Amino acid sequence: MTRGASLPGVATAIRLHDAIAELAGFNDDPSAGGITREVYTPTYAAALERVAEWMRDAGLDVRLDAVGNMFGRWDGGEPGAPRVLTGSHVDTTLNAGRYDGVLGVLGAIEAVHLLRDAGLAPRRTIELVAWAGEEPRFGTGCVGSRAAAGQLDRADLDGLRDRDGTSMAEALRGAGFDPDALAAAEIDPAGVHALVELHIEQGAVLEDGGESIGVVEAIAAPHDFRLTLRGAATHAGATPMRLRRDALSGAAEAVTALERIARGSPSGTTVGTVGVLRVRPGAINVVPGEVELDVDVRDSDLAAREQVVEEAVAAAREIAARRGLELEVATIVEDVPVACAAAVVEAAADTARELDLPCRRMTSGAYHDAMIMGARMPIGMIFVPSHGGISHHPDEFTDPTDLERGVRVLAGTLARLAA
Amino acid sequence: MTRGASLPGVATAIRLHDAIAELAGFNDDPSAGGITREVYTPTYAAALERVAEWMRDAGLDVRLDAVGNMFGRWDGGEPGAPRVLTGSHVDTTLNAGRYDGVLGVLGAIEAVHLLRDAGLAPRRTIELVAWAGEEPRFGTGCVGSRAAAGQLDRADLDGLRDRDGTSMAEALRGAGFDPDALAAAEIDPAGVHALVELHIEQGAVLEDGGESIGVVEAIAAPHDFRLTLRGAATHAGATPMRLRRDALSGAAEAVTALERIARGSPSGTTVGTVGVLRVRPGAINVVPGEVELDVDVRDSDLAAREQVVEEAVAAAREIAARRGLELEVATIVEDVPVACAAAVVEAAADTARELDLPCRRMTSGAYHDAMIMGARMPIGMIFVPSHGGISHHPDEFTDPTDLERGVRVLAGTLARLAA
Repeated sequence: MTRGASLPGVATAIRLHDAIAELAGFNDDPSAGGITREVYTPTYAAALERVAEWMRDAGLDVRLDAVGNMFGRWDGGEPGAPRVLTGSHVDTTLNAGRYDGVLGVLGAIEAVHLLRDAGLAPRRTIELVAWAGEEPRFGTGCVGSRAAAGQLDRADLDGLRDRDGTSMAEALRGAGFDPDALAAAEIDPAGVHALVELHIEQGAVLEDGGESIGVVEAIAAPHDFRLTLRGAATHAGATPMRLRRDALSGAAEAVTALERIARGSPSGTTVGTVGVLRVRPGAINVVPGEVELDVDVRDSDLAAREQVVEEAVAAAREIAARRGLELEVATIVEDVPVACAAAVVEAAADTARELDLPCRRMTSGAYHDAMIMGARMPIGMIFVPSHGGISHHPDEFTDPTDLERGVRVLAGTLARLAA
Repeated sequence: MTRGASLPGVATAIRLHDAIAELAGFNDDPSAGGITREVYTPTYAAALERVAEWMRDAGLDVRLDAVGNMFGRWDGGEPGAPRVLTGSHVDTTLNAGRYDGVLGVLGAIEAVHLLRDAGLAPRRTIELVAWAGEEPRFGTGCVGSRAAAGQLDRADLDGLRDRDGTSMAEALRGAGFDPDALAAAEIDPAGVHALVELHIEQGAVLEDGGESIGVVEAIAAPHDFRLTLRGAATHAGATPMRLRRDALSGAAEAVTALERIARGSPSGTTVGTVGVLRVRPGAINVVPGEVELDVDVRDSDLAAREQVVEEAVAAAREIAARRGLELEVATIVEDVPVACAAAVVEAAADTARELDLPCRRMTSGAYHDAMIMGARMPIGMIFVPSHGGISHHPDEFTDPTDLERGVRVLAGTLARLAA
């Protein structure tokens, strides 16, 4: 089937589905069932080169910046006008699905095809981007967009390390980049009119509501912190219950308290999660002496989020004091929620209405590169449903029909923003 | 200082302390700070050979059985009389202390020296033993004494595997033993009058009470089981609290319930511990989809223990049902508590009284090789204090004075039992 045939929607859906499947083949751990393609690895570089070919096929001028963010440029009729950015990322977390991030890059390429096929001559330049390292290989996510937003300095590149101890600076060098050129990656916000990112929802809200399109009004941001509880690692048989200082029993209470506090958040939209819990020494016959909990609290309502964090930490302090445990609290990351720009929200909502697609205005609970860029330029996001709300998992799935609808809404939004 | 000098107690304490320190040098992971000497490794074999030399220095005839239990024999005056066994083990768990098990072997050698120096000519043969694999390298502990008690069959040797997947049969072969000779390790209980084991308490009960000697009246046995809770691994940001099936939140409630139920046990002596908790996938931005908890419940009162297990499992079922989680329950081990033989208890208590040592009759919360042998012969145990109740840890410590007192009580107990 060729472009511009009688069933363009079907052609787009099939071509996008095929490209997503092909990119899924760039995988460092296929035996695990999902996809592992971490930023700055040879596999990632190969995948990025394939994306560059697809960008060139769509008539885009491709370039890499100093930290490996890849741009594909479609020059507009008015070169001096601030440009429209769109894109996402093609790195993955460990044993991940195939849509997270990838849709926002390959879908943007399809959107360019649709607009070219429709004969659009944009006034503003439209620039596609594949941000480097949205997934947290180095502990912190969105390193590429953080560099573009001027949020990283040279020392961060040495300090951020992956689970093998490799620093981001070392990984950059290994991938052929110069860490000392970091500042060159910064984007001047004066040159950008707006940024829009197409992404899978990664939640089940659209599926629950039967909508194909989500127009994001705000992006929740995480406040992540680590609680370390220390007691006494004593013999599980020989230590009577009354003589224990069991770090896991304390941690269990802290998990339950966080859930209760997040559910009672004043905004009603706060989420609180303990995704990581490490028990030491971790033997069946030893009372746990130390437990680490990595806690993630998010909301688009910053005050509500901070109230939940404060109450959860206070609860942990009370639990530790009552149980004779030591408590250490360390901040991992504190990002600021971002409101989407009305111009982008309305362009996306108008497009969905024009295409007669069922659409919901919503908050993004997941954070994205767009959130990082939102600190310095107008941004917006378009969501498509995630089957069962499953993401970061081999079972991540979005129906090709919904993928195609997302691409059409992105195309219309770009056309409106670039006009 | 030579044996039989004017301060025999000091000589024994110093010599025992030195031997324990020397044995601690047989260590596969000294950089960790503690001792790692797992059964059937070359390091373990070397340590065992050093123990054999000490046994020979004490005039004992040394032999190894089919699974590597090592015996040192002091023939009594009446060769046909059932013998007296005493010993413990010299393997360690990972990054362990230096006293657990070792005291019961090296202390028994010192006890033989004391008895010989005192001119004892025992009627019954006294046989020392270093049981193989008390620590659970292969998941299950006490493999040497289990073989001697006829509790292992040939298929178990293939089924029991260590964390690297090596079976006990493979490990035996690697250490020069023949797994097919397993049955030869079984001890005929008709040939044994009694077994007594000297051990550190591994709890803080003696230290709390200011006693140097514990005479064990019963050994608590573990009922170990694994709870697996399965929910949905969804995005921590994008999944509202109401749409979650968080396996860790359920597991946290189960940990709290176990603690409450164990504290309320009808016997007052039940202990319940979750020493292992594994979270999958274990990423800060993913709601935990699966959690495994390894639960250990112990008591010398079997009915009370089983009531706690039943209530804890019922609580987990209620939690799982209420939260929409799947629950799987798998038994790991179910051992039977053992009452110590009155003859051994009284021999130890009489000796402590004669030596004017502060002594407590107590239950052993930890299980030991003596518990395994207790299923088929009269047994008893003598405890000395553990500083701070710390065990299975590099900081495990018992004062040399208490070590020496334990040796003297063991010597007197052996003399009484062998008379």
